[in-house]
Amino acid sequence: MSANPSPDTVFPHRHLLGIEGLRAGEITQILDLADGYVEQNRRPVKKSTLLDGRTQVNLFFENSTRTRTSFELAGKRLGADVINMSTDSSSVKKGETLIDTAMTLNAMHLDALVVRHADSGAVKLLADKVNCSVINAGDGHHEHPTQALLDALAIRRRLGRLDGLIVAICGDILHSRVARSNIHLLNAMGARVRCVAPPTLLPSQIERLGVEVHHSMKTGLRDADVVMMLRLQTERMSGQYVPSTREYFYFYGLDYEKLEVAKPDAVIMHPGPMNRGVEIDSEVADDLKRSMILDQVELGVAVRMAVLDLLTRDRRQSDLAGANQ
Amino acid sequence: MSANPSPDTVFPHRHLLGIEGLRAGEITQILDLADGYVEQNRRPVKKSTLLDGRTQVNLFFENSTRTRTSFELAGKRLGADVINMSTDSSSVKKGETLIDTAMTLNAMHLDALVVRHADSGAVKLLADKVNCSVINAGDGHHEHPTQALLDALAIRRRLGRLDGLIVAICGDILHSRVARSNIHLLNAMGARVRCVAPPTLLPSQIERLGVEVHHSMKTGLRDADVVMMLRLQTERMSGQYVPSTREYFYFYGLDYEKLEVAKPDAVIMHPGPMNRGVEIDSEVADDLKRSMILDQVELGVAVRMAVLDLLTRDRRQSDLAGANQ
Amino acid sequence: MSANPSPDTVFPHRHLLGIEGLRAGEITQILDLADGYVEQNRRPVKKSTLLDGRTQVNLFFENSTRTRTSFELAGKRLGADVINMSTDSSSVKKGETLIDTAMTLNAMHLDALVVRHADSGAVKLLADKVNCSVINAGDGHHEHPTQALLDALAIRRRLGRLDGLIVAICGDILHSRVARSNIHLLNAMGARVRCVAPPTLLPSQIERLGVEVHHSMKTGLRDADVVMMLRLQTERMSGQYVPSTREYFYFYGLDYEKLEVAKPDAVIMHPGPMNRGVEIDSEVADDLKRSMILDQVELGVAVRMAVLDLLTRDRRQSDLAGANQ
Repeated sequence: MSANPSPDTVFPHRHLLGIEGLRAGEITQILDLADGYVEQNRRPVKKSTLLDGRTQVNLFFENSTRTRTSFELAGKRLGADVINMSTDSSSVKKGETLIDTAMTLNAMHLDALVVRHADSGAVKLLADKVNCSVINAGDGHHEHPTQALLDALAIRRRLGRLDGLIVAICGDILHSRVARSNIHLLNAMGARVRCVAPPTLLPSQIERLGVEVHHSMKTGLRDADVVMMLRLQTERMSGQYVPSTREYFYFYGLDYEKLEVAKPDAVIMHPGPMNRGVEIDSEVADDLKRSMILDQVELGVAVRMAVLDLLTRDRRQSDLAGANQ
Repeated sequence: MSANPSPDTVFPHRHLLGIEGLRAGEITQILDLADGYVEQNRRPVKKSTLLDGRTQVNLFFENSTRTRTSFELAGKRLGADVINMSTDSSSVKKGETLIDTAMTLNAMHLDALVVRHADSGAVKLLADKVNCSVINAGDGHHEHPTQALLDALAIRRRLGRLDGLIVAICGDILHSRVARSNIHLLNAMGARVRCVAPPTLLPSQIERLGVEVHHSMKTGLRDADVVMMLRLQTERMSGQYVPSTREYFYFYGLDYEKLEVAKPDAVIMHPGPMNRGVEIDSEVADDLKRSMILDQVELGVAVRMAVLDLLTRDRRQSDLAGANQ
Repeated sequence: MSANPSPDTVFPHRHLLGIEGLRAGEITQILDLADGYVEQNRRPVKKSTLLDGRTQVNLFFENSTRTRTSFELAGKRLGADVINMSTDSSSVKKGETLIDTAMTLNAMHLDALVVRHADSGAVKLLADKVNCSVINAGDGHHEHPTQALLDALAIRRRLGRLDGLIVAICGDILHSRVARSNIHLLNAMGARVRCVAPPTLLPSQIERLGVEVHHSMKTGLRDADVVMMLRLQTERMSGQYVPSTREYFYFYGLDYEKLEVAKPDAVIMHPGPMNRGVEIDSEVADDLKRSMILDQVELGVAVRMAVLDLLTRDRRQSDLAGANQ
């Protein structure tokens, strides 16, 4: 167990903006550390003081229950002071630029800035301007790295490994930063990734990311170890053919029948929030033996604690060194 | 004084969903514990660490200043990490079901979930699905148990007892979960409860709850020890006769004239927020000798601390036992 | 360094409602204490427990990113429990009066209440009714005292003094509580204040506050040590001539050309959020050598810590004395 691990092992990045570009060893380092935090969260006998006196700001330009709450919990369980800022109460209304908002927060001496934004690349833009560690909590269609990490942790804990597994990512891949981060992570860790979706819900040239493309659940799920369903994001579909939910469920909704071609013990995942009866059948979602949907939520907090811990190590060490002079 | 009482005394319920079904001894246990917290809040020399490392989520599907703040304060004063979630920032907008929201939060290892919801019974529905303790902070027209407990504490501290007192609950009883919880509590503790309201603002068959019904303040308040006014909830009146505020005040608004028939030292209560000049005269509301309106607010924090303490004792003991193995 | 200074020095006021009426010595006391907190924030090795168990409520009837966050950070860094209440989630919607909201909060035993309100004088109204310390975080066009204090701290740290400096406050002075508080503070500390604005953006009889009035940047900025720009608050201009941004920038927007008449090392300030290209040129705003805009943000947290510390000393001492009896 490594709940408060030695701060000697430094992570070679200041920010976590995406999975693209991370090495397998770095991903494993996060997952190993997160394993310890899973146990700690299950028996909270004594509060961690690891981030005592540290400041984390959750800057959310898009609403999100689970992600914001998960990051807030992660920070607080490490002892950080956590401050939430959503667009509703922000200066953005007064016409302030994104960069000025970031610079302002930075001047207050943050240790970690968790950002969700509707535009791909907005988080990177901020990260270039601030001294603190920036964690991407989802930017446009680009990346959502902690989601991919928690998915990987869930798979690894259940199936023992990532290498060599067949993972089918199914549904609205076009609008999904979750899919994109998972593809990068699973590729880096040696899994075989399939994208299963209608042509209208696939980004062009998705094959370039090194995935197999399937338009049918029958071929896409064959022998899969992991079936990862995505939320149908109709709210992001403008000027585009929106399938009826009935039609969509018929072709791409996960039910026991479609699942038959997968491995007998294939596990089922969904990043939430679910549209029951649209991309996933309710019974399948609640199948305690195969569905890992609630494990994903649980492990999300642990993964975010690991990321906060790793990204702030450098700063914590140098502050301590300064104080001891 | 029993601010951090021995955790030996275990409370026989995991949730607090309503007053209905609680025994007199259990109510007394909560009130006795709350008495200690009242003193502690008045002189906050050292912060309690009772709920150190514990997580409380306030999940509010309806707005509320005083109740949410009171629960937040209660949790923080016991050392818990408190996270607020209101509908505005929740996944509910994305179509997630109430149960999925609860299951998601539960998977993050909460210790207490405080819920307010517009539908009677919604909180019970959640409680059946989660491992943590659930506290009903008001569900529809059903119950608001901590309000009844704080009202009881206020009365007991001022008049020395509940048993045998005549309590007149006056006004919009139809829409009031506060009235319902108070009726159950006062009945259980041996008080005599009168409901004073126009027929249109009384639930049908209210007599079955074991109360006297009065349509006139003159008979309803006669010899009363406690006059408990309710907020006129015009916002909940749809397709229903809405009295003018002037008419309403004339017949049911509490002023010194109507109060004359009550006991000379009768105390006045209101759960807030008040409509001054509608259900209560401003001068009466501010009468420091008789109005207990601010006492109610003060004691609310203490009662909620007692409830949080009691409901989490079981879990705290077993976590400690596990850690010592 | 005086991060946790001896609580012997008591501040002679319970509230901070404005700068008007503060003596030079009192202002200096706040600034001196804030200096210590600046250093503490830069190297957060150990969290302060000064306000351990204390409760701060931020009651904001107007939106604000930077001010609310700055106060929240200040309170948390001192160890206080901080609770945010914005109009969106408050009882105000239910028709509760401002005073009742304040009395309700007060009954929960607060130590500090930070209030922002759209009406001049609203904060004073509250302060008269509560036992806790009230800090004005901006009321209407009246005062915003912590902004003036942080501005003063920024100037003092950069230029070594306030006395005798020429400070030009430029722009929308009519709608600016920041300007008003700064005028009072700078006058008290012996600076020479100039107000530079078009006649339509100047309060009538502004000269009575003991300032020089200029309608041209050319004369207003001559030999100035400090150029303090204000946000053009078009959102507050109703039934009034609203200048086009282009016209406004031409006459009153700060650029290098207008700056030429000021002292060669004159510093530039702005309370934020900035309208780049309206009241200030982007290049000037980002001029690291002359712009103190980010210093202002940084020092804001320290100033607010100092104010929270000073205003609660009396209460902390008497609680301790009571506990030791």
